[in-house]
Amino acid sequence: MNGDMTAAYITALGDADDIRIGPLPRPVPGPGEALVRVGAVAANRVDTFVRSGAYATEVPFPFVIGRDLVGTVETPAGTFARGDRVWCNSLGHDGRQGSFAQYAAVPVDRLYPLPAGVDQGAAAAVLHTAGTAHLGLFRDARLRPGETVLVEGAGGGVGSAVVQLATAAGARVIAVDRAENAEWCRSCGADQVLDRTDPEAPATVRRLAPDGVDVAWDCSGRHDFETTIPLLARGGRVVLMAGMGARAVLPVGAVYTRDISLHGFAISNASVADLADAAGTINRELASGRLRGRVRAELPLTEAARAHRLLEGREGGAGGPGRIVLIP
Amino acid sequence: MNGDMTAAYITALGDADDIRIGPLPRPVPGPGEALVRVGAVAANRVDTFVRSGAYATEVPFPFVIGRDLVGTVETPAGTFARGDRVWCNSLGHDGRQGSFAQYAAVPVDRLYPLPAGVDQGAAAAVLHTAGTAHLGLFRDARLRPGETVLVEGAGGGVGSAVVQLATAAGARVIAVDRAENAEWCRSCGADQVLDRTDPEAPATVRRLAPDGVDVAWDCSGRHDFETTIPLLARGGRVVLMAGMGARAVLPVGAVYTRDISLHGFAISNASVADLADAAGTINRELASGRLRGRVRAELPLTEAARAHRLLEGREGGAGGPGRIVLIP
Repeated sequence: MNGDMTAAYITALGDADDIRIGPLPRPVPGPGEALVRVGAVAANRVDTFVRSGAYATEVPFPFVIGRDLVGTVETPAGTFARGDRVWCNSLGHDGRQGSFAQYAAVPVDRLYPLPAGVDQGAAAAVLHTAGTAHLGLFRDARLRPGETVLVEGAGGGVGSAVVQLATAAGARVIAVDRAENAEWCRSCGADQVLDRTDPEAPATVRRLAPDGVDVAWDCSGRHDFETTIPLLARGGRVVLMAGMGARAVLPVGAVYTRDISLHGFAISNASVADLADAAGTINRELASGRLRGRVRAELPLTEAARAHRLLEGREGGAGGPGRIVLIP
Repeated sequence: MNGDMTAAYITALGDADDIRIGPLPRPVPGPGEALVRVGAVAANRVDTFVRSGAYATEVPFPFVIGRDLVGTVETPAGTFARGDRVWCNSLGHDGRQGSFAQYAAVPVDRLYPLPAGVDQGAAAAVLHTAGTAHLGLFRDARLRPGETVLVEGAGGGVGSAVVQLATAAGARVIAVDRAENAEWCRSCGADQVLDRTDPEAPATVRRLAPDGVDVAWDCSGRHDFETTIPLLARGGRVVLMAGMGARAVLPVGAVYTRDISLHGFAISNASVADLADAAGTINRELASGRLRGRVRAELPLTEAARAHRLLEGREGGAGGPGRIVLIP
C-alpha cells in the first residue's frame, strides 16, 4: 500500500505553469476515509481560482490540485468495499488535498457510489457542474415543477447541467447562448433556445413567459439585471454563481416591489449534507442518461498545467465548448 | 346602519392635492367582512405611491386611500363581536377600499384583535412598519436568536420596528442613522448606534462584528452594497424594501463566493397567511410594550392631503421623525 504516486501539485499559490507533475507519497487514509484509485478527474474553473489564490481557501503544501474524481475504492471504509466505483466532488479546498493524482484519501461522507454502467470520463465531466446546478436550482431557488427557468450561458458546463436538471424536474427552460450552442442546448432539454446576440431576445422571453420567468440564472456572469429583472415574475429568484469581477447594476425598485430575491452561492461553501443531497440527484440523472456533459478534451494527468491554461484562455487548441477530463 | 360617512378619497390617480374630503356611502360589509368604525389611521409612504400610481395596484374609484386602521367592530363577523377593538394593515390596495374614512368593511381574515390596554394611535403608528419588519426579518431573512443585524436608517418608521422586533427575537442590532436619532435607536433596543455621517462607521461595524453581520437592512434606500456586502458573514442576508429609484452597484463576486442572498419584498404582496403571522408578532410586542412608534403629528382626517404632502417632503411644519396619525 505504501509508496509514491504521480500527482499534479503546487508548492505555493501561483500560475498554471507552476503546477508540478511528479511523485508524492501515496496518501494514508485517516479514520473515516477511503483510499481511492483515481480513474478520471475534470478540470474546473474553480481549480484555477484555488491554485492562483483568487478564491481564498486553506491549502496544505505540497498541494494536490483538483476538485472531483471518479475512481475505485482501494482501501475500504464505511459502507464502501474494495473495488466499488465511486466519485467525489469536494476535494482540493478547505484544507483537503485534491484529486489530480493516482490516489486520493476521501472522507466517506464525501464519497458516493457511481451508478452501474456510467462511463468514468462522462461522469467526471458533470460532477462539479451538476452539483452546482442542483444547489442553485433546488436548495436556493427552490424550483418547483411547472415553473419557467431562464438560463443564460446555457451551453456551458454549469449552464448545460442547469438545463438538464431543471427540465428533469419538470420545469420549462428558456436557454440563451451563442447560436453555435443552440443544438446542444436543445439536446439538453431546453424548450426554447435564443441567440444571445439577438437584440430581440428579451422581448422574445417576455412573449414566451408573459407572466414572467420564475428563476433566472446567468451562467455567463454578465448579470445584465436591468434587462433580466423586469422579465421575472413576482416572487422570482435570481441565482448568482459566476461573474467574480462583475459590478452589476441592480434596479432596486423593480426587485423589491415584486418580491424578487437573489441567491449567491459557491459550491465550495456547501455542507456535507447539501453535497450528499446533490449527489442523490446527480446519481439519479446519471443513471437516467439525462445528465451528460460535453468533453472537449481527454488528456493525461501530466497535461494538468495545459488544462489550466486552456481554462484560463491562455492556450489555443482543444478549444470550443466542453469540459477537460484528465486521466492519471 | 345606512347613510354617509366622511372619507378621504380620490377619483383618479394623482397628486396629494387631488385628495378629496367629503361624504361617501358607508360601506356595506359583504360575506366574511366586518364593518369597523375607524378610530385611528396612519399615513404611510406606500399610500402616496398607490395614490400617485407609482405603485401599480388595482384601485376602484372613488377610492378611499389608506392602508391601516385601528377601530371598533360595528357589525360583527366571524369571531369578532360588536365593540371589539381591532386592527388591519392591508386595506387600500389590490382592489380593496382603504381606511381613511369613518367606516371600513374589512375581510375578517385581515382583521386582528387589538391587545387590551394598547392606545389606538400608538398602535396605528406601527402596524405597517412592524408588519414590514416582521416579514423581512423572519419570513425572508430567517433571523435566528444570537445573530447580528445591521440596520441603516434605524431611526425611521420601518427601521425602528426592525430594531425592536430583532432585539425582541434575541438578535444583536447595530443601528446606523443620523446622530439626532441615536438616543431613539438605543431606546428601541439597539446594542450599538453609529452615526451614518461618520466615515469610520463601516470599520466600526467590522470591529463590532469581526465574523460579519448576518442580516443587513438598509431602510434608507441608499444601498451602498460595495460597503455593506463585505461586512456580511458567509450566508448573510440583505433585505431590500426601500429605494424605489435606486440603481445600486452589486459586487457580484463578493456576493456569491460567500453565499450571500438579497431578499426584496413589499408588504403589499404578502399573503393573508403571512400577514396573520406578522399580526401575531405585532400583537405580542404591542402587549409587551417593546413595539412602539414615534408619532410626529396627530391630525384630523380632513388633513389627509397635508399628511401626504408631509410624507412627500412638500410641506414644512410637523417635521422631524415619527409617524403621522389621523383621527376620523
